[in-house]
Amino acid sequence: MASSTVPMGVYLWKRLASLGIEHVFGVPGDFNLTLLDQIYNVPELTWLGTCNELNGAYAADGYTRIKESPAALLTTYGVGELSAMNGVAGAYAEQAGMIHLVGMTSRPIQKMRALIHHTMEPGMDHAIYIGMSESVRKTHTFLMDDSTMAEEIDRVIIEGVKSRLPVFIYIPTDIVSVQLDAKRLETPLDTSIQNDKTGEDAVVNSVLELIKSASNPVILADVLTIRHGGRGLARELVDLTQFQSFSTPLSKGIIDEDHPSYGGLYNGTVSFPGVAEAIHGSDLVLNLGPLLSDSNTGAFTREVKDENAVLLGHAFCQIKGKKYDGVHFLPVLRRIVEALKGDTKGYQLPRPSKGARLEAPILNKSTSGAIEQSYTWQRLGKFIRANDIVLAESGTAQFGMPDATFPANIRYITQIFWSSIGYTVGACLGALVAAKEMKLPGRVVLIVGEGSMQMTVQEIGSYIRFGFKPIIFVINNNGYSIERAINGPKQDYNNVSMLWDHQKMLEFFGAREETGIKSRSYKCKTVEELEKVLTDDDFAKADCIQVCEIVMDQFDYPWRLTKQVEISKARAVAMTSKK
Amino acid sequence: MASSTVPMGVYLWKRLASLGIEHVFGVPGDFNLTLLDQIYNVPELTWLGTCNELNGAYAADGYTRIKESPAALLTTYGVGELSAMNGVAGAYAEQAGMIHLVGMTSRPIQKMRALIHHTMEPGMDHAIYIGMSESVRKTHTFLMDDSTMAEEIDRVIIEGVKSRLPVFIYIPTDIVSVQLDAKRLETPLDTSIQNDKTGEDAVVNSVLELIKSASNPVILADVLTIRHGGRGLARELVDLTQFQSFSTPLSKGIIDEDHPSYGGLYNGTVSFPGVAEAIHGSDLVLNLGPLLSDSNTGAFTREVKDENAVLLGHAFCQIKGKKYDGVHFLPVLRRIVEALKGDTKGYQLPRPSKGARLEAPILNKSTSGAIEQSYTWQRLGKFIRANDIVLAESGTAQFGMPDATFPANIRYITQIFWSSIGYTVGACLGALVAAKEMKLPGRVVLIVGEGSMQMTVQEIGSYIRFGFKPIIFVINNNGYSIERAINGPKQDYNNVSMLWDHQKMLEFFGAREETGIKSRSYKCKTVEELEKVLTDDDFAKADCIQVCEIVMDQFDYPWRLTKQVEISKARAVAMTSKK
Repeated sequence: MASSTVPMGVYLWKRLASLGIEHVFGVPGDFNLTLLDQIYNVPELTWLGTCNELNGAYAADGYTRIKESPAALLTTYGVGELSAMNGVAGAYAEQAGMIHLVGMTSRPIQKMRALIHHTMEPGMDHAIYIGMSESVRKTHTFLMDDSTMAEEIDRVIIEGVKSRLPVFIYIPTDIVSVQLDAKRLETPLDTSIQNDKTGEDAVVNSVLELIKSASNPVILADVLTIRHGGRGLARELVDLTQFQSFSTPLSKGIIDEDHPSYGGLYNGTVSFPGVAEAIHGSDLVLNLGPLLSDSNTGAFTREVKDENAVLLGHAFCQIKGKKYDGVHFLPVLRRIVEALKGDTKGYQLPRPSKGARLEAPILNKSTSGAIEQSYTWQRLGKFIRANDIVLAESGTAQFGMPDATFPANIRYITQIFWSSIGYTVGACLGALVAAKEMKLPGRVVLIVGEGSMQMTVQEIGSYIRFGFKPIIFVINNNGYSIERAINGPKQDYNNVSMLWDHQKMLEFFGAREETGIKSRSYKCKTVEELEKVLTDDDFAKADCIQVCEIVMDQFDYPWRLTKQVEISKARAVAMTSKK
Repeated sequence: MASSTVPMGVYLWKRLASLGIEHVFGVPGDFNLTLLDQIYNVPELTWLGTCNELNGAYAADGYTRIKESPAALLTTYGVGELSAMNGVAGAYAEQAGMIHLVGMTSRPIQKMRALIHHTMEPGMDHAIYIGMSESVRKTHTFLMDDSTMAEEIDRVIIEGVKSRLPVFIYIPTDIVSVQLDAKRLETPLDTSIQNDKTGEDAVVNSVLELIKSASNPVILADVLTIRHGGRGLARELVDLTQFQSFSTPLSKGIIDEDHPSYGGLYNGTVSFPGVAEAIHGSDLVLNLGPLLSDSNTGAFTREVKDENAVLLGHAFCQIKGKKYDGVHFLPVLRRIVEALKGDTKGYQLPRPSKGARLEAPILNKSTSGAIEQSYTWQRLGKFIRANDIVLAESGTAQFGMPDATFPANIRYITQIFWSSIGYTVGACLGALVAAKEMKLPGRVVLIVGEGSMQMTVQEIGSYIRFGFKPIIFVINNNGYSIERAINGPKQDYNNVSMLWDHQKMLEFFGAREETGIKSRSYKCKTVEELEKVLTDDDFAKADCIQVCEIVMDQFDYPWRLTKQVEISKARAVAMTSKK
């Protein structure tokens, strides 16, 4: 019996499709075109070209965050892979990694070390760029050997799925038609997380014991819970325990903010009243998926003592100071939830319960006049509807949005650890694609500053090109306000072009009468004007792409930004004087 | 006598100003703001913020090409430096390097390995990104030690100027106020090229002898001549010798194309009739600054035999096969020109002389109907005026433009070796700035495909913001035509959004009645329409920013592109069958 084969390209695309991927992001280039030809033989997949590679990487990252499994990104040798670098690094930092396919020079051309375009100097090893990405990936494979290609592809994809970090597959042009054993495709990739049984048992049993005995337990659900596929389980845990529960700046929305147990967003001392007190005073902080960066911990003012904490991470779990290396939280959380479900008697959980909810203070009751930061974010929070996807750009949006209280089941994207401005404009495309694949019922709402938007604006053209209908709030406050808050509020380096007319943006990119693509654009300089838009049913139903430009003062900053900058500066001064 | 000091930031900026730099490109970020504060203490310098870092790197590269000395680029830690990577790599490949300043985390924060924004994981060495750029720079310094800072800054700047490759200076935030010895600034940086006297003498004397004895000598002046500061000397050499003289795709314009000795553009067998024959048949090819990449040699069909060639490069010179390592062409060329000037008797040069000129064939005499590739480039060449700066984007523009014959003294920018699409939109900003600094009399003409332009379009907003008035030709042919020529002409991956309305672009970015910024936009679908624009005196005088969109068929390619693809494909087939 002759065994059947498939070309390497088809093999790769089929493996990616088996992960549930339906769209592949990226930019074509002459070293990936023949690989792209083979995507048309895999009907589960659709190519989705972005305007440039950085935006493509951002889109892949945004897609990964919504789907909670890796996207696929395709770039070309040198120019493409290097352009994507910052976006891939961000996905590494925030563990929203993609499977990055890089089309490379053919093996014979590599052997000659030919000075072809996208190389840099005579005699150069064509593999030089592979080394440049080493720090921003979990693993990679450079497909040079026919005999190991299939297993290498499988290995790298599996590691990508398990680690949630970027992984790279380098594909010389001449290998896409190499015939691989089709039979391998009948065996699905095993991407399941397997813990050491003893360690896992110890963690599960300890946590269940602690849950029984704690006197004022809380849940602090952080962002790596979402990244590593634990969002649903975290929500079940909150429902089952009714423990007072908290999110962080990065994980906002992981707990329904209309939930009776929702305590608020914890960001060290940069939190609303009562929040830090509740966590710092708890004798059992069930901390899921922590990511302890400066802006996710109120400039390192988080105070969760080891003796009161259970950390359930993807690399290790830690119970009251005792560390269990290599125990991944996902199977642990699954068993805990099952145990709580199955044995409600043994784990009766009468504590804090309903009384746990903390309401956010109302910061600004403006009904007219200038639009202030203290008003904007809570107001936008009220505009958000259950099931929406919300993206808050680096800068004022991501420092302001924690003031808002969301309705149920919001998927929230912000990049406050990597903090690359312009990110959300690309990520929004990925979120739109993911929402479409998943048939999510909500709207996609992007909130972006005008300076950030200038970084990546062309991808708004892709929203229109592919028929998406996001609501885009453009915070127009005359430059880089996050930087003004940090240094040089009046220095001209914090200015950007104020000549752009955002009211003409959608028209320029394609929403015009002759294209038949509808759009709406608004510009609001006062609370009255903004209220009019936000209460307009047509606007709210988002049946076409829309822009709402919100004009704010350039020296008005969210209080959380001001406070974090104060803390960081005081610490810097203290460190310098100690020196 | 107390010696005076200056803060490190001022020291650095003053050193850069001493190179003739007047504008610094880049994007502010919280790790470079305090360095930027000090730029205001150096009145010779002006900050010029770009929309994003990739465009900033492209702008720096474009500036370097026009000024023939390095630009300065400033980015911030992680997000900024990585975003610039592809642009810096291109500047490395094509030796249009900048001095890249990267604002970094402070030394105390580095020591703590704090998990602050723009890092990637707990415990990470903050210097990790420094390693990622190693392959795309000549040298770098990581300014950690107060006592060596000044000399390190000097060393790196000097290497940058001499090598014309990117160099990096990493600047922790806490060092910008470190006081350095002001007296050092009184000694100018020595960036002069010094050859070993014996080697240089040998090369100069041999070349002068060969010039006397050759029977049909030619000059082939390639792009690294320009990069390493030899443009003026090369032109003098042509004038003095009246040898038949040639450029390449990368160096087009280096020889005045109205010069009686101009033979044409040499690109191996992908040249106009007579060109390859003249060079391949010459017994003395004076080849200045060669860059022997695929697309600069007609897909490696250049045939200049060692025994007939003098290669005058920046890393070595080579005379009829004998190599002189470490002999830089610049002092050599200077001495040759001086010798020819001073001793016209000894070097009387009666050979080919006036009769040398080869005229380009006229490819297409269209006067009406659809605009074809074979018509467009020669027509645009006629529109170009003496002293203009012309930028031809990767793709059809750079494969078409060699068909054109330019008037005198054109500075031409194309990136046919690195070939990163979108490059010219950023590079044009740099060219505009350089032209302003140098008070050049010509216009700046950008020719870019609509797909390439989508990559980097926001920088057109910067042209308007800073008051520049380029003429922008947008080649609108429904996608990536260079890729269609290579593979998959009808595949949808070669499509881009065709919904953009380029007629509204300048308006969106700021040229509107209420801003008082004038502009003109035209869309031409026929030869008649294009002729009307090109013969319009108002358009030609370029007194405001202008767009001329040229609509062409998506399957129409410049003949040089088609031919190069044919040669490359035939070679790939031959290599595979040999295997």
